[in-house]
Formats: sequence, C-alpha cells, structure tokens
Amino acid sequence: MKAIGFKTSLAIAEKDSFIEFETSKPVPAPHDLLVKIDAISVNPVDFKVRQSSAKDTVLENPKIIGWDAVGIVEAVGENVTLFKKGDEVYYAGDITKQGSNAEYQIIDERITGRKPKSLSIEEAAVIPLTGLTAWEILFDRIRINPEKDKGKSILIIGGAGGVGSIAIQLAKKIAGLTVIATASRSETIDWCKKQGADFVVDHKNLIASVKEAGFENVDFILDFVDTNLYWDLMVELIKPQGHIASITGSSDPVALNKLKNKSVSFSWELMYTRSMFQTEDMIEQHNILNKIADLLDEGVLKTTLNETLIGLTADNLKKAHQLLESGKAIGKIAIKL
Amino acid sequence: MKAIGFKTSLAIAEKDSFIEFETSKPVPAPHDLLVKIDAISVNPVDFKVRQSSAKDTVLENPKIIGWDAVGIVEAVGENVTLFKKGDEVYYAGDITKQGSNAEYQIIDERITGRKPKSLSIEEAAVIPLTGLTAWEILFDRIRINPEKDKGKSILIIGGAGGVGSIAIQLAKKIAGLTVIATASRSETIDWCKKQGADFVVDHKNLIASVKEAGFENVDFILDFVDTNLYWDLMVELIKPQGHIASITGSSDPVALNKLKNKSVSFSWELMYTRSMFQTEDMIEQHNILNKIADLLDEGVLKTTLNETLIGLTADNLKKAHQLLESGKAIGKIAIKL
Repeated sequence: MKAIGFKTSLAIAEKDSFIEFETSKPVPAPHDLLVKIDAISVNPVDFKVRQSSAKDTVLENPKIIGWDAVGIVEAVGENVTLFKKGDEVYYAGDITKQGSNAEYQIIDERITGRKPKSLSIEEAAVIPLTGLTAWEILFDRIRINPEKDKGKSILIIGGAGGVGSIAIQLAKKIAGLTVIATASRSETIDWCKKQGADFVVDHKNLIASVKEAGFENVDFILDFVDTNLYWDLMVELIKPQGHIASITGSSDPVALNKLKNKSVSFSWELMYTRSMFQTEDMIEQHNILNKIADLLDEGVLKTTLNETLIGLTADNLKKAHQLLESGKAIGKIAIKL
Repeated sequence: MKAIGFKTSLAIAEKDSFIEFETSKPVPAPHDLLVKIDAISVNPVDFKVRQSSAKDTVLENPKIIGWDAVGIVEAVGENVTLFKKGDEVYYAGDITKQGSNAEYQIIDERITGRKPKSLSIEEAAVIPLTGLTAWEILFDRIRINPEKDKGKSILIIGGAGGVGSIAIQLAKKIAGLTVIATASRSETIDWCKKQGADFVVDHKNLIASVKEAGFENVDFILDFVDTNLYWDLMVELIKPQGHIASITGSSDPVALNKLKNKSVSFSWELMYTRSMFQTEDMIEQHNILNKIADLLDEGVLKTTLNETLIGLTADNLKKAHQLLESGKAIGKIAIKL
C-alpha cells in the first residue's frame, strides 16, 4: 500500500519533511479492523509529533502519523463484534500505533464509530479527533451535567481552531451553556458565530473584552492555546467553584495555588489517554463517536470542514501541516484519497 | 460577652498566644442569626490564622477566630427565613468574619444547619467545618456520582485527622467508594478502620503499601496533608482519567504537566469559598449541613469527636491548638462552654 511518512524530523518546507513510500498492508489483531481509508484529516498533534519524534535521528522505516480517518472495513480480527466487512467507519486512533496517512490502517474496534451517513467522506473525516476531545473535556473531565449546568457560561480560548469549532457546537447545543469564544480576525469571528458562539471576544485583550460582553467571570474555561500563557488570565476570569480544562500541556510548572481561594478545578484532556492506557472504559470512544454521528445525522451538529485537498500525497500533507503550523487555520482541513 | 482572641501572632506556648476578654454582643445583619454558643471545635485552619494574621503587629482589638460551633438562636435579622429564635443550630462560618471562640456569634442563615438531634452538643460541634469540606470535595469538586462511580477506589492521605475521618465515612457510606486511608500508628490505623476505611496504608511507604493493599492505582485521591510533598506520588498512583483533590494549598509551583498523559483532573477545596465570594449557591452549605444532620440522626454517619475540654478558656484553646500543631491529633477536639 501507499503511505506518507518521514524518517527524520525536518522543517515542513524541506524536501523530505514528508516522503511517499510503499509498505505492506497491516494485519488486524483480534480486536482490530483493517480499514481501507477514503479520507483523512490533520490536527496540531500531527506536526508536534512530526517535529519531535525523529529529532537528530534517522529512522529505518518511515513513521506514519495522522489520527483522523474515514474508510470502509475490509477485514476484521477474530474477536471483533462491533463492525463487519463493508461497514463505513470513522475514528481518530491510537498515538502508540501507525497513523492514518496511508491507504490502509488497522484500528481497535472499541475506538471506532460508524461514519455519519449524511456527511461526505471529507466532511466526516475532520470530526473524530476534535469531536472526541471536545466531548471528553466537557462530559468526562469537567463532568458537565446538561440539566444541572444549563445556562452556565463557558469561555473557549481558541474558538476558530479545529477543536474550538466543535467544542463551541457541543457546549452550546448539547451542554446548553452560554458560549464565549475567542477570535480576533473578521473571518475567525464569523466562523465562531457560525459554530454557535453567543459572544466572540478578543484574546489580545481578554479580561476587558469578556467584561464588555457582560461577564465578570465564567463558570468554565477551555484552553486550546497555551496553559502557561493564559494561566493568570484564567485565574482572574474563572468563577469561584469553576473549572478550567486544557489540552495544550504546560512546559513550565504552574502556580496552582492561585486557584485555591476560589476552590477551582483544573483538568487535562488528552484524546489518546483511553487507548494509550487501554482503560477499562475504552469503548466509550466508540459510544461517543456514534453519539456524535447521530447528532450530525440529525442536523444538531454540523461538520467543521473548511478546506479539502485531493490526493494522498506528500505535497498535500506538507500544505496541511504548513497551514496548521501558521496558527491561522480556521476549522478543519481534509485530504480525500 | 466573654471571648478568646489574640492581638499578635505568638507561639502557642507564650502567655498571650490567647487572651480572654470582654466585648459587646454582635448585632445580626438582615440575613444573620445571633447564636448563643454551647460548644465549639478547633481545626488546623485556626492555628494557621493565629500564626499568620497578626505577625509583627499588635491589633487594637483582639481577633476572635474559630470556625465550628453549636448553639441556640437568640435573635434573627429581619430577612431571616430559615431559622427562628430557640432553634438549635450548627455551622462552620465565614473566615472574613468573627469566629466562634466566644459566647455569642452572628452567622449567615444560608451557611447554618440544624443541629443533629441525636448528638450531644460536643459531638455535633466537631462536624460542620470538616463535614462541609469533605462533602464539597467529593460531590461539588470531584462531582462524584454515587450511581456511576460506585465501587471506584479513593485514597485519602491523612485519614485519621479531622477532615480525613469524616471524608472516610462519606466516601464509604454515601459515595459508595472503596476507601484506602493513610495512617502509620496503631491508634490512627484503628481510628481509620473505625471510620469505615477498607484498607489502611502507610504514608511513609505509600506506593508500595497501596500496591500491597491490592491497588496498582486509584480513581480518586484526597490530599489532606501537603500537595507539594505528595505530588509525584499522587501522579504515580492516580488512575488514567482520575481526579486528585486537596485542601492544603501549595507553597511552590506545581509540575501540572505530569498529569497530562493520564488526562487527570485536580481540584482545590476551600470550605470558605462560598461565603467569601458570596456565591449564588451559598445556601448549599445550609443544605449540606442539614443532609449531614439527617445522616447522623439516621446513624449512617457518626461523630468524629475524640476529646472534649470543658470551659471556654484561653488555656483550653492553647491545649487544643498545641495538639493540632503537633500533627498527632486523632479525629476532633471539642470545647464545651
């Protein structure tokens, strides 16, 4: 099969930052599906792994990354019960295994969902990683209870990015919250409103612009940009007994004590935790993907696709990574095979 | 009225670390009760405030601390609806206001509960601050859902202390968790078991002793001892997607990033947050205290009282603070007026 990968971590502009190569089709383990991929998507984690996983070294075999795909089940492992040959599926995947920048991939059935029927392959391919991340952060980490928390406020830092876009939709339409998203360019402001944000505020002047929108502070904050950078602003903006959650990681130690007087909670969300640790509730990702597929098919949620590239080529992956690395991407990019 | 206080922060052994004095009865504001106090308790926050709030200064009027009391409502403010003159109440109080080391105190009705009928005044006096703390940490911060989380494991660091004792009971009997508490002396081990701990482990050899009890890791951790000191051990022991909560504060910045791969959450709990910020849901403390009173009267929970001193005197407060400062206190101490 054809695949795209890299043998060493290079700047994206370099010729061999991605290379095309042939490799053998992977063979499914007992709980795995073998999927023939129709479309993939890219996420910021992709370029972080590309930039860091083969630094100052040259791998013997190219590393295949990418964790977002739509495809058709071509074969199943002996213990598979959730899917059968011919099923259309979508999934994000497992960071400890081969990624989706290839014609075929094996994927554990417990982290795979049914492809939303009403969406095109490229519209569906952009959903899994960000959809799982946003769902887990709201309902598994913060444990938002739509009945009890209805009408509370949430600030989403980085509203127009891939995870920000679907988080706005889930926070508004499923959690029933009042959504304040950050964006500063006219295109990103419009995009956030299109996703359902009640208010869009300028992250360059965060405290003042949140107040201007009518909020002294907020019940929940999702940080999709930089935990260390936004720490003191989040400390100031979070409501007593509020909850902050982030996906970014923090390079420096954090002045956690600043949240104490307000009895504030903080959560990390990493979409890969369940598969990485093979948690007992790993099948929740199958359930979440199916719920999101239902919500997409019912028209409650909509795809966050904003751009489609045609063809699984090193050039297309370079274009997609370049756009993500610029920090200017709006919504999501798909690559149709 | 008689009260005990201090004008300057002194070591407890010093003559004037507490002084007895006369002052005028406080007057209730619209939402306040004036309570004639029958019994009080002491908590570690008391000596922290005594040691730090009048350092290198001499106050004009002595500062009255202490946040745990049982008494009888003697008068009510004009807007009070929850209690009337003659009611027996118990409460922890508000750190921004005068404490309970006095014959009379004013207290906001929304943070006051009915005294458990079946308990003596000293048995009831030791419950409010630690009961509220443990209840809030389990159900408002971690948001434990007794149906969904039944049977999960919780490690309670500092099991034999005041808050540890009632936290063991609530975690076991109300949240339905499997409780592992830390203690190392034979008296404290017995005490933890008496509170309902399923396992008691040695905090001096925490990882190994938790494993020996049969747990590779735990779903929840409550830290009642020292966040910085226990950070790396908690990072290792917490289950992926687990939740750590603490009441201790952290003097140093924290390597929060170590919790990221496991998607772990962290909460601070400060029992004073609701009254300090006059949160919209401040009345929850009234509700929690009443629920705990019901559970005590039904025999589901029991008092954590371990020692009673008789008489509101500077000497008795010194004795109580000395015992708390030693770190050797088991359960709670009450002072009967």
